[in-house]
Amino acid sequence: MASIINKPVLYSYWRSSCSWRVRIALQLKEIPYEVRSVSLIKAGGEQHSNEYRSVNPMEQVPALQIDGVTLVESMAIMHYLDETRPQRPLLPRDCIKRAKVREICEVIASGIQPLQNLTVLIYVGEEKKNEWAKHWIKRGFSAVEKLLSANAGKYCVGDDITMADCCLIPQVFNARRFHVDLRPYPTILRIDRELENHPAFIASHPNQQPDCPPEATK
Amino acid sequence: MASIINKPVLYSYWRSSCSWRVRIALQLKEIPYEVRSVSLIKAGGEQHSNEYRSVNPMEQVPALQIDGVTLVESMAIMHYLDETRPQRPLLPRDCIKRAKVREICEVIASGIQPLQNLTVLIYVGEEKKNEWAKHWIKRGFSAVEKLLSANAGKYCVGDDITMADCCLIPQVFNARRFHVDLRPYPTILRIDRELENHPAFIASHPNQQPDCPPEATK
Repeated sequence: MASIINKPVLYSYWRSSCSWRVRIALQLKEIPYEVRSVSLIKAGGEQHSNEYRSVNPMEQVPALQIDGVTLVESMAIMHYLDETRPQRPLLPRDCIKRAKVREICEVIASGIQPLQNLTVLIYVGEEKKNEWAKHWIKRGFSAVEKLLSANAGKYCVGDDITMADCCLIPQVFNARRFHVDLRPYPTILRIDRELENHPAFIASHPNQQPDCPPEATK
Repeated sequence: MASIINKPVLYSYWRSSCSWRVRIALQLKEIPYEVRSVSLIKAGGEQHSNEYRSVNPMEQVPALQIDGVTLVESMAIMHYLDETRPQRPLLPRDCIKRAKVREICEVIASGIQPLQNLTVLIYVGEEKKNEWAKHWIKRGFSAVEKLLSANAGKYCVGDDITMADCCLIPQVFNARRFHVDLRPYPTILRIDRELENHPAFIASHPNQQPDCPPEATK
């Protein structure tokens, strides 16, 4: 397989929750990879450079170069990894459970994250951005909490880690950045605690990234 | 299979682009289904009723009752239909092509639609909503056009209709509602023309829905 010869290259930003999703998946599957940092804040955002635009026309991270192709969009990348590297599957075998995993992923990946990402917050403006982000995170987490109450075991869906957990933990990290009160979401909090000491989640954590500024870990 | 005895029930709103995605998939796979209309505008939005909230905690359409379960979120539903009803596949067999389909889906389903849906536009406010919606559609369509230039055949990825087409055509409909100039996106326009006379896209079109108000089709 090409990936054994050429290590996959992940374009990532330490604090990007979508990059973190893919880092977790790579860690869980024990796929060695090289990180190329794309700073979303330096010089107005390196993701808008001509060079990076040719990697990802959406001008955002992550992007993954693997098996001779460049893939963008975190859910597409995680599905590709799962379909080509079946070790440590990120989806259950049962079709209904797979749908339940994807529901939770989609509430986060379409219903929360896009509304509180950096590009949108810049457009919303400094004055309103915190209230705006909190509003959409709380709305989405209420739905996630209800979906979890019907599906969670040790993790989001049953007792194995899935794509839903790869989406949830980075979103909880974002929620804390925006000072969202997480007490109304006990299942989310329980799963977050369950995974905070998991090696794949530790190694992929924003604070463990080469581009994390030292002051952020204090 | 349960669905042969109990027809699947789709909670749908005629103009909802996410409902339309699922209607296209059901039509392509020739799965008979019953529509229950959820008006997103009547009485402040029927999706916020206690009754509907128990169907979909995100308080949005679509939701599909099928095989004894209720599924929400359009990408999760389309994947479930594809995994349980393999006729007329919505994803290519090749893993890289599947990733390319999912990239286009995700740019639309996470990068465009969530930013221009009704709930967000109400929150943005009457005065700014058109400019806001246009901004995000144009940004996303620029990326979709680039992805298509590398992957499109007769349709979004190759010569078979995929989930990417199920996402693209409803988003083009939305773009027209917001008077987005589509001339900078020739491949999007070509695929839209290619599919406008396809039976599955006609039958699932907003104007063909039982809850479409007569004045909308004029």
